[in-house]
Amino acid sequence: MKIAILGATGMSGQTIYQEAVDRGHDVTAFVRNEAKSKETLGDDAKLKVADVFELTTEDLTPFEVVVNALGTPRGRDMGYLHIDMAAHLIRILRNTTSPRIFFMLGAASLLDKDGHPFIDSFVKDPSSDSWIDTPLMQVHEYHFLQTVTNVNWVGISPSLSYGPGPKTGYVRNDKNQALFDSSGKPNLTSGNLATALLDEI
Amino acid sequence: MKIAILGATGMSGQTIYQEAVDRGHDVTAFVRNEAKSKETLGDDAKLKVADVFELTTEDLTPFEVVVNALGTPRGRDMGYLHIDMAAHLIRILRNTTSPRIFFMLGAASLLDKDGHPFIDSFVKDPSSDSWIDTPLMQVHEYHFLQTVTNVNWVGISPSLSYGPGPKTGYVRNDKNQALFDSSGKPNLTSGNLATALLDEI
Repeated sequence: MKIAILGATGMSGQTIYQEAVDRGHDVTAFVRNEAKSKETLGDDAKLKVADVFELTTEDLTPFEVVVNALGTPRGRDMGYLHIDMAAHLIRILRNTTSPRIFFMLGAASLLDKDGHPFIDSFVKDPSSDSWIDTPLMQVHEYHFLQTVTNVNWVGISPSLSYGPGPKTGYVRNDKNQALFDSSGKPNLTSGNLATALLDEI
Repeated sequence: MKIAILGATGMSGQTIYQEAVDRGHDVTAFVRNEAKSKETLGDDAKLKVADVFELTTEDLTPFEVVVNALGTPRGRDMGYLHIDMAAHLIRILRNTTSPRIFFMLGAASLLDKDGHPFIDSFVKDPSSDSWIDTPLMQVHEYHFLQTVTNVNWVGISPSLSYGPGPKTGYVRNDKNQALFDSSGKPNLTSGNLATALLDEI
């Protein structure tokens, strides 16, 4: 398939890129820095150098799948970029059925065993003050996406804990209840996310 | 004051434009069609011809106030443009305190006497099927705006009933409860809205 990966040099993006290439897909990495991208993805990588806010309908519709793996700078008060990037991508794809576009939503859709969004307890926890901005804005991004009925979008909430690591096998839950391993810990590696995502694609 | 009016040839926009000019403000009409705009606003009108999605930060920051009076085409399934326009305008104004930007939200924030949003009963009414799209999307626009803490924005919900008409005096309610006249009818004219808006500006 023809797949575009936005933010292809990030932690998630580069793992997804490699998994997609390994499976023989025709993959284009959308990046901002050509030299850095060649270092990360190799000289053979097919690159499109552009800022996300400059992308147009014509840039994305040649693809069957777009994966938005764009991150935002760590720290406070930058999480709004998740909403702005999603709003721009949705706008340029209004009234299309292809590409199918994937958004990474952090923990946005994850529910606890009682069916309550985890974000509600995070917000109440005073110690979340330094990091709540990004997951909170990803929840708003998720709510925004839920208003969108004329774009073929998919949202993915990786896990309560997500970081770099190899592919070892994954469990998928479409009901949004957060998953925990046999020792009671949430755990998802970038390798397992990439595998799950490419299986879905 | 330096005021920009987006959608200055629409029903609300042209009345707001005239009220602002009459009060001696330095008003620029942002429009798409120069010839049509001169017919509506006069040959002396200061025009900026541009599509809203092409506007940049530099286009808006010279103004102290921006009024978004952009409408969307009547009919079903075009209301999403309210969200897309708001998202674009907010994006280009992130991390600014000036201009102060006004959004017209239809009935989005209006509550009934029990404090319930009118939109909830509209949605349940099967006869709303042909017109619910626009007010529903304006509610989503309002929810989106409520996530925005780094732009100086104001939302205005005119009234349950709003249409062209002269200025005769108005009542303002900042608590979002919908207002009704002495005969129990909701009623707001474009002239009264423009007066209230310019008083607030």
